[in-house]
Amino acid sequence: MNVPMSLIRVHFFETDAMGVVHHSNYLRYFEQARVNWWREQGIDYRNVQERGFHFPVVESQLKYRRPARFEDLLEVKVSPRLERAAAIFEYEIRNSETKELLTTGSTTHVCVDKDLKVRRLPEDLISVIQKAVNERGEK
Amino acid sequence: MNVPMSLIRVHFFETDAMGVVHHSNYLRYFEQARVNWWREQGIDYRNVQERGFHFPVVESQLKYRRPARFEDLLEVKVSPRLERAAAIFEYEIRNSETKELLTTGSTTHVCVDKDLKVRRLPEDLISVIQKAVNERGEK
Amino acid sequence: MNVPMSLIRVHFFETDAMGVVHHSNYLRYFEQARVNWWREQGIDYRNVQERGFHFPVVESQLKYRRPARFEDLLEVKVSPRLERAAAIFEYEIRNSETKELLTTGSTTHVCVDKDLKVRRLPEDLISVIQKAVNERGEK
Amino acid sequence: MNVPMSLIRVHFFETDAMGVVHHSNYLRYFEQARVNWWREQGIDYRNVQERGFHFPVVESQLKYRRPARFEDLLEVKVSPRLERAAAIFEYEIRNSETKELLTTGSTTHVCVDKDLKVRRLPEDLISVIQKAVNERGEK
Repeated sequence: MNVPMSLIRVHFFETDAMGVVHHSNYLRYFEQARVNWWREQGIDYRNVQERGFHFPVVESQLKYRRPARFEDLLEVKVSPRLERAAAIFEYEIRNSETKELLTTGSTTHVCVDKDLKVRRLPEDLISVIQKAVNERGEK
Repeated sequence: MNVPMSLIRVHFFETDAMGVVHHSNYLRYFEQARVNWWREQGIDYRNVQERGFHFPVVESQLKYRRPARFEDLLEVKVSPRLERAAAIFEYEIRNSETKELLTTGSTTHVCVDKDLKVRRLPEDLISVIQKAVNERGEK
Repeated sequence: MNVPMSLIRVHFFETDAMGVVHHSNYLRYFEQARVNWWREQGIDYRNVQERGFHFPVVESQLKYRRPARFEDLLEVKVSPRLERAAAIFEYEIRNSETKELLTTGSTTHVCVDKDLKVRRLPEDLISVIQKAVNERGEK
Repeated sequence: MNVPMSLIRVHFFETDAMGVVHHSNYLRYFEQARVNWWREQGIDYRNVQERGFHFPVVESQLKYRRPARFEDLLEVKVSPRLERAAAIFEYEIRNSETKELLTTGSTTHVCVDKDLKVRRLPEDLISVIQKAVNERGEK
């Protein structure tokens, strides 16, 4: 599949008293889709952590356009790119049935070692992201 | 108190396997501080909901500068303002002991009725926000 | 498949500073597996709610035997039964790879209407549970 | 105050689409009240962890009697006791205004070291719990 996509089912415990998914959960959907994306590229995120690297989120932005509800099946499109020392992941969440765009956003990650010191991204991760950028036909 | 501030204790269940607060929880700290802020201004958020209004978050932005850890006591400064049809809340989260700045961000809210139709903000809420803006000495 | 089973991936945001899944999340895994189970039996839980019924948890018990970690794939076995006015769901969570038993537990549910008044379980749900009991060869 | 008590405010993000606190959150309220209890007894739970000890929950039981709602202020009574190698905490959650009993439950904890091996509870923690038992006038 050229477009990497995660399918995420909305759970009851993710809804709030307005009857829709609480807005904080979209950062969790993003994370879930991001880890899936690494796994699909052959990168086990746990191994990266065992090598002593973490990729904490240093910035995030979200636009909530339409609500998602209990039992909705969401598809999350993940588009990573490199920007100097950082990896930026962009996300589009759609209702998998109606294809309506629900939420968009991005997370910016830096690479840190076990002491939370900023480090260069490991080469194998850089090339996986660069490959994804090339496949999307961007420069 | 001129500067509205919430004190929030970091709970163990809010930490993740990196040993720090998971980044998604800051949107929950923001919400908690925002509801506290309304309460301190004499607005019970539940009454607003009973009058048929909700203020869903339509956008959010966060910058994670330093991690927070289990049992840290955080202080959250809340600065709301009006911008056309929207209310924008800005947040600064500091460690209450060291005063280090940990996370900043904002949430943008519109007013909707029970059918999720966008409505004008109720007058009493507009004047409470306008009062806060004036007290901060902004225009 | 005779034994109803849900596969659940452990997400990073479900871990805590001990490096394992926080114990509160198992009630969420149970819920997720329970809703999946209803769906597999042809019952859309949302329709039940639209008919005005809810099945709140009135009791729960959990035994945490071994920890689960980030990226583990868990299998959850769901065994419902009827007991007077209540539906009781029992759960076994295993690591899908090692088959080690991680967590067991149960949730007890009653049927309530929109005003949270206790009601008899709807006939179609009773017969779906009764069918599951029969297939397990219990009385 | 002889009866140790935590006050916990219900946050919007803890509610679900039934309009009440999701049942999984009570385990989090229990944890929050338990850590508060240790702190009130002069025990900083972080120091215990730094000495290499953890007290994972090995069992939990909950009875959900009445729902809690957004902005409710809850009081949580914590009653710990020792039972062979384990520490058992019992909890009663009431609405702080109406004093209605909402949820009761217990969590059972063992002491483990950093390698998750079961160890004897440290003496200082045993005596703090024993003191609480004595103050309740139990044997």
